[in-house]
Amino acid sequence: MQRRHFLKTASLGVAGAAAAPFVSTSQAHANETYNWDMVTSWPKNFPALGTGANDFARRVEQLSNGRMTITVHGAGELVPALEVFDAVAAGTAEMGHSASYYWRGKVAASQFFTAVPFGMTTTEMNAWLYHGDGQALWDEIYAQHNLKPFAVGNTGPQMAGWFKKEINSLDDMQGLKLRLPGLAGEAMNGIGVSTVNMPGSEIFTSLQTGVLDAADWVGPYNDLAFGLHQVADYYYTSVWNEPTAALEGTINLDAWNALPDDLKAVVTEAARASNLAMYSEFAFRNAQALEALVDEHDVQLRTFPEEVMAALYESSQKAIQRQVEDDEASRRVYESYSAFQKIVRPFSDVGEYAYLKSRDNVGS
Amino acid sequence: MQRRHFLKTASLGVAGAAAAPFVSTSQAHANETYNWDMVTSWPKNFPALGTGANDFARRVEQLSNGRMTITVHGAGELVPALEVFDAVAAGTAEMGHSASYYWRGKVAASQFFTAVPFGMTTTEMNAWLYHGDGQALWDEIYAQHNLKPFAVGNTGPQMAGWFKKEINSLDDMQGLKLRLPGLAGEAMNGIGVSTVNMPGSEIFTSLQTGVLDAADWVGPYNDLAFGLHQVADYYYTSVWNEPTAALEGTINLDAWNALPDDLKAVVTEAARASNLAMYSEFAFRNAQALEALVDEHDVQLRTFPEEVMAALYESSQKAIQRQVEDDEASRRVYESYSAFQKIVRPFSDVGEYAYLKSRDNVGS
Repeated sequence: MQRRHFLKTASLGVAGAAAAPFVSTSQAHANETYNWDMVTSWPKNFPALGTGANDFARRVEQLSNGRMTITVHGAGELVPALEVFDAVAAGTAEMGHSASYYWRGKVAASQFFTAVPFGMTTTEMNAWLYHGDGQALWDEIYAQHNLKPFAVGNTGPQMAGWFKKEINSLDDMQGLKLRLPGLAGEAMNGIGVSTVNMPGSEIFTSLQTGVLDAADWVGPYNDLAFGLHQVADYYYTSVWNEPTAALEGTINLDAWNALPDDLKAVVTEAARASNLAMYSEFAFRNAQALEALVDEHDVQLRTFPEEVMAALYESSQKAIQRQVEDDEASRRVYESYSAFQKIVRPFSDVGEYAYLKSRDNVGS
Repeated sequence: MQRRHFLKTASLGVAGAAAAPFVSTSQAHANETYNWDMVTSWPKNFPALGTGANDFARRVEQLSNGRMTITVHGAGELVPALEVFDAVAAGTAEMGHSASYYWRGKVAASQFFTAVPFGMTTTEMNAWLYHGDGQALWDEIYAQHNLKPFAVGNTGPQMAGWFKKEINSLDDMQGLKLRLPGLAGEAMNGIGVSTVNMPGSEIFTSLQTGVLDAADWVGPYNDLAFGLHQVADYYYTSVWNEPTAALEGTINLDAWNALPDDLKAVVTEAARASNLAMYSEFAFRNAQALEALVDEHDVQLRTFPEEVMAALYESSQKAIQRQVEDDEASRRVYESYSAFQKIVRPFSDVGEYAYLKSRDNVGS
């Protein structure tokens, strides 16, 4: 039924535009309603990620005064978690909510729109998307797959993950079976770890049964929700793999093009508002969960030894270089990404970083 | 003329609600237009602050499909820079854009909704506003002045300011004439500095003529725009005074109450989107300006010696305590603020701060 709505809307959009070229699209469609489906990579109402998708849909409905509704579906309801990209490209649903690096096997450059090891922070990444070439490159690459992308939320910095044994040297990492996707996973492989990817919902059992020795998921809020502290004692807080992780909204390009201008503005600004809202929520919920993990569940917080961090840095630079050499789109995107990081980082260092050091040093 | 619009709209709003209690406000007002004026504390189109107010107005107009317009006025066009609060409270304009700590002489607790020395970062502050009691307390305190407040933008971390002479000890601070407002100014007074406040536009001449020895303004982007590097050689990047600075939108409460629900949502979400947009813009523009200051203008970056930072921390805690003892509203707000900072800071430390250290330590 929802599928029918979309097709009808899309064709009306084209017909309306053709019949009345001098009437603004917004006026011509002032009384039309748009009822979209959104497929997601998260369990329905999953903390911050799933609820963040719901919040985006609520914003669109409120801002449009009910002219546009979005029905949010959990992973597996309409399509499986990792088929969101294909489903939205094909028009099975008008919109998806996921993370761009999940599509790395299909679109290598998508990696750079979520997270890069030792890459930009959340603030730097948003500056690249809104004031650098980030959004334009993302648009161009996704348009080839009939998609229009937006940043719709961010997890903020992610933890390095859960380990069953303490890591005191690079030797201790050898042969560990670790769940960690993407470029960071490749970097870990480069220092002797054996990484795999699997949906978040399988991590608990895999750690429990010994299929995994260690696993990265998101951060305290989501990790606590999956009970990972029950199956691993050491929580590594060294942030290197995902200094930020932008979540993506993908919109079928035909559905996007069929929207009148004011509803395009509604979607654009609801995405921007959701980007900040989800990041703010993670800052609060992660902090609450961290307190619970340490105070109630006796979780041991650890950081990797310096030699591990140095090896991970070298290895991640090599993994990025390999990808950039293999793929022209990746080369263009990473050139823009790394040039922008060079511009914005000095201000992060004398601004945010200088302050966090100040607050630390005065013993507050 | 704009004033007339506002009064007409406000009374129609009340009448409509009374006459048709079972018709949603939004439906009853679907064809009404709302034309507001916004007075600001910034020169018209001033980098990021003035243009950020313009961007907010543009968002409201686009999201409402033209049903609501906001005409933005620079400081001095309708009312002087520091009369925004009173003008909006009185209904001279429906809305203002400014910084809440400017009203500290009138509403002491307003300080805490902009910046607190050694207080929360931008991310922590937004979490307090959106997920803690921050917004509710701000609403309550401003409602007593016939105002509804929103965070509409953020400068991010601000620099410690421009000094004509290098600071190598606490002794070097004695008797310096420094432009620095608010609690941070009081903290400086407590360590032997003599602070004053003055509008940003007067800083350049005051430094040039020797009325000032030093001055804080905002950060590289706005400081470069005022040419402060031409009248002081040392730029202190130690962030302690304003780890974040939220900008405020204030709305006359009668004008706010007269809006239908969908336009209330438009204003709320345009404010949230603008909050992120301005912060992202500052991250980029400050970085560009910092590069220009150092590479083209040979500005010397410095940080305060440890003994100065330690003294500023002690002194700022005393200044906060004095205010909290003197004013019941300040006590309530600061209790919420500091409790929230205690909750969120540990995650900032293992997240953002841990990452910035990692990126630094690997020598990237």
